[in-house]
Amino acid sequence: MAVYTDIADDELAQFLLEYDIGALVAFRGIAEGVENSNFSLRTTGGDYILTLYEKRVDPVDLPWFIGLMRHLAAGGINCPLPVAGRDGAALRRLCGRHAAVTTFLPGVWPRRPRPAQCGQLGAALAQLHAAGKGFEPSRSNSLGPHAWRALLARCGDADELQPGLTAELHHALDRVLAAWPASLPAGHIHADLFPDNVFFLDGRLSGLIDFYFACTDLYAYDIAVCLNAWCFEPDYAFNATSARALLRGYETVRRLTDAEQQGLPILAAGAALRFLLTRLFDWLNTPDGALVTRKNPLDYHRRLRFHLATRDFHAYGI
Amino acid sequence: MAVYTDIADDELAQFLLEYDIGALVAFRGIAEGVENSNFSLRTTGGDYILTLYEKRVDPVDLPWFIGLMRHLAAGGINCPLPVAGRDGAALRRLCGRHAAVTTFLPGVWPRRPRPAQCGQLGAALAQLHAAGKGFEPSRSNSLGPHAWRALLARCGDADELQPGLTAELHHALDRVLAAWPASLPAGHIHADLFPDNVFFLDGRLSGLIDFYFACTDLYAYDIAVCLNAWCFEPDYAFNATSARALLRGYETVRRLTDAEQQGLPILAAGAALRFLLTRLFDWLNTPDGALVTRKNPLDYHRRLRFHLATRDFHAYGI
Repeated sequence: MAVYTDIADDELAQFLLEYDIGALVAFRGIAEGVENSNFSLRTTGGDYILTLYEKRVDPVDLPWFIGLMRHLAAGGINCPLPVAGRDGAALRRLCGRHAAVTTFLPGVWPRRPRPAQCGQLGAALAQLHAAGKGFEPSRSNSLGPHAWRALLARCGDADELQPGLTAELHHALDRVLAAWPASLPAGHIHADLFPDNVFFLDGRLSGLIDFYFACTDLYAYDIAVCLNAWCFEPDYAFNATSARALLRGYETVRRLTDAEQQGLPILAAGAALRFLLTRLFDWLNTPDGALVTRKNPLDYHRRLRFHLATRDFHAYGI
Repeated sequence: MAVYTDIADDELAQFLLEYDIGALVAFRGIAEGVENSNFSLRTTGGDYILTLYEKRVDPVDLPWFIGLMRHLAAGGINCPLPVAGRDGAALRRLCGRHAAVTTFLPGVWPRRPRPAQCGQLGAALAQLHAAGKGFEPSRSNSLGPHAWRALLARCGDADELQPGLTAELHHALDRVLAAWPASLPAGHIHADLFPDNVFFLDGRLSGLIDFYFACTDLYAYDIAVCLNAWCFEPDYAFNATSARALLRGYETVRRLTDAEQQGLPILAAGAALRFLLTRLFDWLNTPDGALVTRKNPLDYHRRLRFHLATRDFHAYGI
């Protein structure tokens, strides 16, 4: 569910007067997504997405996200392009929230990613990394490794979810943080490139969306996020064919360094921890009855255990 | 939240092969709605809505709903038109559910209905009633007055929500059922014409959607549902200007009989009871964590009290 804030029709009509994108034709809330409220907006001028920024997005970061999307789009990445109002500003206010209109991307996200899609994903991820170069401002990863210990402390009692989980997470954190490969190639990364943020059309990857966790961090960490999000079956089996396709796809654009390859198990364990911890926080701290889909943190507990049990990076199919 | 069942992209692609509506371009879940899963579907041929029928819709009734929408559309009502597959059938199966593709209606539903919109609504409702004539099959109102006592009994303990509510509801039911005006003009009615089922475009009513509570019942009961859904302010104040506009709009198409006018207070109390009872049932019987927006039953308790306290139909602005 991704409509936290509904927009009255008269407020919307007023808001659209600030743009030069035609008159309102249709407006519906979009069910996908978790962080922000998203609406599909059709005007006589075309199709757009209207986003109201909610909870986890820090308004201070919004100009950076908007700037990055513009830079990436200019660099040939099919991502939403922020649409400026008549006054030239893309970031506006609506219903007491920061809001932006972006272009609509066609395509459908893959519910059950297949290896061929993972291959295309890998190439697109490397293209994204390349296209991010030259965008000067940086944004530190607020959900990066330095934040995980504090996040675990704020979660509450993880043993409520599964007895022994708190101790296991502390132990995993110790191990992952001690081995974290800090000096790998870095730049702007998506940091949340789950299947529902990647569209395909006629079998080809057609676009990437939702850049609101993007930040400046290790490129290989972005790969590690994708290994978690794309390469596990619903029964938590690791699909090494998908992982190999993902990594080979990436390497059609940029070769991984030896250090990046060797870092994959720890980076993947770290990425599993990051999603486990934010989901755990939401699980233990979302009021009953809130209009939010709580995702089961234990999906990432299973992934974490897989990564921590790998002998080396060959586990990822390379 | 109106996506109970997600559809895998390959299942969707397979499903679309059964239609002659072009190739898939985009597919998003729609946040609005409560009863069914709805998706906006764009193909190279145009825009459509894909509906998976969930819980409250009895599959036996689906051909009737589809037939009624076709009949109404042929009679000039802007409602979704079911799209037949290559084999001529509009009702199909997808993800273990009954499914249908219908045409997309442009427009935006009014979040804060104004009297001018209520006037247009009234006229559209009367046109709907007129257009329904000639559709021979009938469908009894499964949530009509005969069902309310059993529904209250199945709800569980209404006093959990508000002490004394159970007794008050039994008393209200006794009073409303005893005075129910059974012999008023009848035909096919929408029975759920809330603002989110009515679209406006450029200030004009542009379409009516969601016919899955439609049935054969008193026309004036349909008006009574709208009086509840359109003519109360967020603070539960009754907006008699909106009610007058609604009734006058209706009467531009069909004059109400004296008996219909006199029946309005009891019909409106009954309509309030109907929505109070289904919301109460959902409130007391929805598991925590279900992906459903539970609507507060007490919104309709306040409306019920208003209607039961009216002296006569002049309370509705006429």
